[in-house]
Amino acid sequence: MHTFDKSNYAPHITHCNTALHSTCIMVNLVQRVEDTWRTCSKSDSSGASNSGCESSKESSRSSTPVLDTDRTDRLRDKMRHRTESGDHWFSLEFFPPRTASGAVNLISRFDRMGSGGPLFIDVTWHPAGDPGSDKETSSMMIASTAVNYCGLESILHLTCCNQTKEKITGYLSKAKRLGLKNIMALRGDPMGADWEEEEAGFNYATDLVKHIRCEFDDYFDICVAGYPTGHPEAESYDEDLRHLKEKVDAGADFIITQLFFRADTFLKFVRDCRAIGITCPILPGIFPIQGYQSLRQLVKLSKLEVPEEIMQVIEPIKDNDAAIRNYGIEQAVSMCRVLLESGEVPGLHFYTLNREVATMEVLRQLGLWIEDPRRTLPWAVSAHPKRKVEDVRPIFWASRPKSYIYRTQDWDDFPNGRWGNSSSPAFGELNDYYLFYLKSKSSKDALLKMWGEELTSEQSVYEVFTSYITAQPNVAGHKVMCLPWNDDPLAPETNLLKDELDKVNRRGVLTINSQPSINGKPSSDPIVGWGPPGGYVFQKAYLEFFTSSENVTALLKVLKKYEPRVNYHIVNVHGQNTTNAHDMQPNAVTWGIFPGREIVQPTVVDPVSFLYWKDEAFALWIEQWAKLYEDESPSRMIIKYIHDNYFLVNLVDNDFPLDNCLWQVIDDMFELLDNPPEEQPAEQPAEQPNDEQSDKEQPGK
Amino acid sequence: MHTFDKSNYAPHITHCNTALHSTCIMVNLVQRVEDTWRTCSKSDSSGASNSGCESSKESSRSSTPVLDTDRTDRLRDKMRHRTESGDHWFSLEFFPPRTASGAVNLISRFDRMGSGGPLFIDVTWHPAGDPGSDKETSSMMIASTAVNYCGLESILHLTCCNQTKEKITGYLSKAKRLGLKNIMALRGDPMGADWEEEEAGFNYATDLVKHIRCEFDDYFDICVAGYPTGHPEAESYDEDLRHLKEKVDAGADFIITQLFFRADTFLKFVRDCRAIGITCPILPGIFPIQGYQSLRQLVKLSKLEVPEEIMQVIEPIKDNDAAIRNYGIEQAVSMCRVLLESGEVPGLHFYTLNREVATMEVLRQLGLWIEDPRRTLPWAVSAHPKRKVEDVRPIFWASRPKSYIYRTQDWDDFPNGRWGNSSSPAFGELNDYYLFYLKSKSSKDALLKMWGEELTSEQSVYEVFTSYITAQPNVAGHKVMCLPWNDDPLAPETNLLKDELDKVNRRGVLTINSQPSINGKPSSDPIVGWGPPGGYVFQKAYLEFFTSSENVTALLKVLKKYEPRVNYHIVNVHGQNTTNAHDMQPNAVTWGIFPGREIVQPTVVDPVSFLYWKDEAFALWIEQWAKLYEDESPSRMIIKYIHDNYFLVNLVDNDFPLDNCLWQVIDDMFELLDNPPEEQPAEQPAEQPNDEQSDKEQPGK
Repeated sequence: MHTFDKSNYAPHITHCNTALHSTCIMVNLVQRVEDTWRTCSKSDSSGASNSGCESSKESSRSSTPVLDTDRTDRLRDKMRHRTESGDHWFSLEFFPPRTASGAVNLISRFDRMGSGGPLFIDVTWHPAGDPGSDKETSSMMIASTAVNYCGLESILHLTCCNQTKEKITGYLSKAKRLGLKNIMALRGDPMGADWEEEEAGFNYATDLVKHIRCEFDDYFDICVAGYPTGHPEAESYDEDLRHLKEKVDAGADFIITQLFFRADTFLKFVRDCRAIGITCPILPGIFPIQGYQSLRQLVKLSKLEVPEEIMQVIEPIKDNDAAIRNYGIEQAVSMCRVLLESGEVPGLHFYTLNREVATMEVLRQLGLWIEDPRRTLPWAVSAHPKRKVEDVRPIFWASRPKSYIYRTQDWDDFPNGRWGNSSSPAFGELNDYYLFYLKSKSSKDALLKMWGEELTSEQSVYEVFTSYITAQPNVAGHKVMCLPWNDDPLAPETNLLKDELDKVNRRGVLTINSQPSINGKPSSDPIVGWGPPGGYVFQKAYLEFFTSSENVTALLKVLKKYEPRVNYHIVNVHGQNTTNAHDMQPNAVTWGIFPGREIVQPTVVDPVSFLYWKDEAFALWIEQWAKLYEDESPSRMIIKYIHDNYFLVNLVDNDFPLDNCLWQVIDDMFELLDNPPEEQPAEQPAEQPNDEQSDKEQPGK
Repeated sequence: MHTFDKSNYAPHITHCNTALHSTCIMVNLVQRVEDTWRTCSKSDSSGASNSGCESSKESSRSSTPVLDTDRTDRLRDKMRHRTESGDHWFSLEFFPPRTASGAVNLISRFDRMGSGGPLFIDVTWHPAGDPGSDKETSSMMIASTAVNYCGLESILHLTCCNQTKEKITGYLSKAKRLGLKNIMALRGDPMGADWEEEEAGFNYATDLVKHIRCEFDDYFDICVAGYPTGHPEAESYDEDLRHLKEKVDAGADFIITQLFFRADTFLKFVRDCRAIGITCPILPGIFPIQGYQSLRQLVKLSKLEVPEEIMQVIEPIKDNDAAIRNYGIEQAVSMCRVLLESGEVPGLHFYTLNREVATMEVLRQLGLWIEDPRRTLPWAVSAHPKRKVEDVRPIFWASRPKSYIYRTQDWDDFPNGRWGNSSSPAFGELNDYYLFYLKSKSSKDALLKMWGEELTSEQSVYEVFTSYITAQPNVAGHKVMCLPWNDDPLAPETNLLKDELDKVNRRGVLTINSQPSINGKPSSDPIVGWGPPGGYVFQKAYLEFFTSSENVTALLKVLKKYEPRVNYHIVNVHGQNTTNAHDMQPNAVTWGIFPGREIVQPTVVDPVSFLYWKDEAFALWIEQWAKLYEDESPSRMIIKYIHDNYFLVNLVDNDFPLDNCLWQVIDDMFELLDNPPEEQPAEQPAEQPNDEQSDKEQPGK
């Protein structure tokens, strides 16, 4: 058996608490460490029990905020609900990043791993890293971002050791204000050697649990740590169990355990807990072995013993990262299968070490990772309790949902939001394009490669758009993976429109948002489906693009033929606005009909918010694109010219049961531009009426 | 020229004011009078100008409360809107009835004439008839009923002569409280000979206009009377015009004129009004001559002269009612065409004398009567300002909308109403089944003929339902035109389901409400369409019926096969309730998608209100049917047995794009009843599981 003494703990491994829940090892550090261990293999042949899992998962996951009035908002209720339905879940633990760019990466990872459907994630508390601050690397901000911008149910760790009650209350108040609803209450490691129990202070996690319940009543769901082999500092295993009972009795809602290497260890622990009257959920902490050194570090920190059978396998392959990772996956899958089959384990908690591959692979093999998770709404629902009834958003921010959340964070009136309700607050300004959760994942260098080191004309801008749409490399041979308005490659749904999008972008109809018309596809449709099973989803075709004022002049003539089928809003950066739609009334462009429910209309074209979106959409030309180039450089001037002179256009085809006519509208516009109508015959005064006409129709003149 | 002196005014012609607006002649009286007059024919060959009328009418008429945010709520705004769009309107004047049964009839007439699409109706003030009281024959109650229960924009007349300010203010406050928004301000006839102008009293309509504006600011729209040939008591035509100018300057919004017989009379009057600066709308009062005697009476009261050319036609046919009516229609149509073509007349006001035929015929010939008026919503919208945002109702009251309005009259929270909002008030009790606006139009005798003088079994009740559904005479040879739950013959929409309804009612599935599934029919569909043009309407199939507990037991077994496609609620009079739906969440069963709009879902199956409806639906068995028979009589006992033992069932087929499966559900139920499953094979203990099963499934056991 291998045990690492805490005294050996290297001080540069930054944030660490007694339980592994809050034991954070920087990824880059872990990857560097290489050592030699002896291990032995433990293989478990039990099969996974997934019976009935899929269907019950759907029913619990796909309920939308407004649709499901018995939706279980509290994490403990969600757990009970899924436990009762036999619907196994998983959850993921992350630690805060060390750098700002690490924060950007972690948020992307939240999005990717969030798509697999975790019941919650948790973010460890990093006492040395100013954890309650507004810094982008703080525990508080990372957890807040996960909740608010990634829509993830989140638990914030909190350690109480060496903290005043005022400080702790301040942290909790801030967490509450930010929309956090769950706390993992931990003691934390005493700092320095001179720590002694304080009479009225926080000596144990129990004190923190009591404090939370005392100061915040039942607001927070509280999690505490369990030690399947006993806390390293505890006098005995039994003594430690009694402490755990105290924590639960003080008001904790569930337990997550320290990692362990044998299913039996956990199952015995659960039995022992139940025997002394602990009835709350006990979630096993799963640690897929991802590398020799990280295992060694973890064990050192947590004073755990690695079973001989594991050491025997690992030791011979300690220099083979891939082999160790594969073994770790296999070992974790085997152990998890035993746990799930035991009937004692409603959900699995994963120590991810902020990595994706191993955990996702284990979850996939267990059948718990939902490759294409059912969407409750066509957009990701924020997890802030204030937004729980939000069920409608303007379509404009479809590709910039975090920006929409940011700009509406001060609203307290969801779902109605801005439209038609003049008493609601307006959209917040978006001056902070570089907030880490709004920032592009790509570096300036990468952006220049994608969007052009040097632009020579408006046409070279068109080509960037075309490359993005077609996923073909640009002239410099780089794939365009994002645009200022689209941080990700084309959505599968938009891909349905690829050919048409390609064609029009080449000619300077620079599309930034679109959706096809849908006339009643099943809600389970893998591409356009959302909402509970057994329903039908609908869409009106939508197209949004920038284009030149010459194009707009032709477009407006063409659109007359499409009244009242097509609604349009056309605006330039100066706010000159032309529309044939009601100036206050939203147009529902996505809606769903479900068994036993009211109608849901989650996406609208809202004329009021379009004018706020316009500011953002035009600003992105400058903030994200023009500023890549030198001041006064031709490239920058080209982008600025587009910014100053182009119009932002949105079109809705109201006749959703018919074929989308918006491409025909654009074709007609090109046709009119290519073949302008003949002058009037000679016997009539020629130019005048035509000129008048085009003057009147050109917005902004 | 024929003039009737006011001194000849017969005192038994009850309620009468200076203007014909408030001159009311009881229909029965008018019909009795027969006299000899000389008339001459005046034929007008001008064609009606209806160009562009249809489309603009649609656009203004079809805006639903929630759909149209620039909807013009005030009558004066509606007038301006329609005047601007060149969309001619008509309006209808009625007087209060003399008897309670007259009130029931008048309300039915409101419904019938309201279906032609009047912009408003007005109800005359009957000073001798306790006009401001709560009696069913009072002007106040008739106007209130028109607004609240018939959904008609209404003007209440009010005369001020011989009234204290307190009394007038009291009337106005009451009118406001009842949802009336428009007042026709009149002086009224002085009562008795000793009337003199009072210093601070109401001497002229102008005083009343000023008083209304002073006490109620801009709340009411105010109409005043205009006299195309001058008021009979005025010193001169010009003097009378100046009085009219005073009334308008005091705050009147528009003018309705006394009747006249020549278009020129009116058009000159309008020119003269405009010349002295009267700019508000001036609506011509049209009086289609309906009989010799009624014309004579009217002229007598109003001191008008009937032109020789009319007298010359009428006099020879004075004993031929039909001929006079036909002439009256022809004369009115000709005159109205001239008026409408003049461009000076935005709308026509009709003195109906509480009759339907002549006015409807004139309107039909003018193209102003909309035979199948576009419905703004699938149900008639109440005209009470409090309910202007109401856009959803439970489907249960579809055939009893007045009862729904009555039971929700105290709500101040529309459109959400009861569902899901526990802070809303509950439904009011319905103990007053005999309120005149809720009362059946049929007499007890007529009901006994339709529903059976004597019932011999439940089967004879089934036959009444079947007769109603099929519109075939019952065994006694009488057509069943209504049922306690359906005051009118089958709706055209329900007629689509006739064959199926016939089949199931014969077997004791006693249907009281149903709708077919609709998967995106145009909103202009003549049978199922509603809402603005260019939209699509949808429905989930719905079926509601009473049936025996034996049937319900089989039905519940059958319904297992239809999970989750079919939602059901099954309840008996004691409130024993079985459902597979959410117990709080409504199921939208009618919705519409329109260009440039949000989704509208005007009809829902709401579980909470179903339990209120249940009380009413069961009570109707007793209140409207059982009580037709002697206490303890077999007929009464049969109805009471059904009331006590049957269940009320509603079914929704959620899969609206597929063929309605609800008939199959009922067929399966009959099949199960006809061919109960075999007993278990001999080697197993037979009855027990089956018995258990049926025990569990039979609600109420």
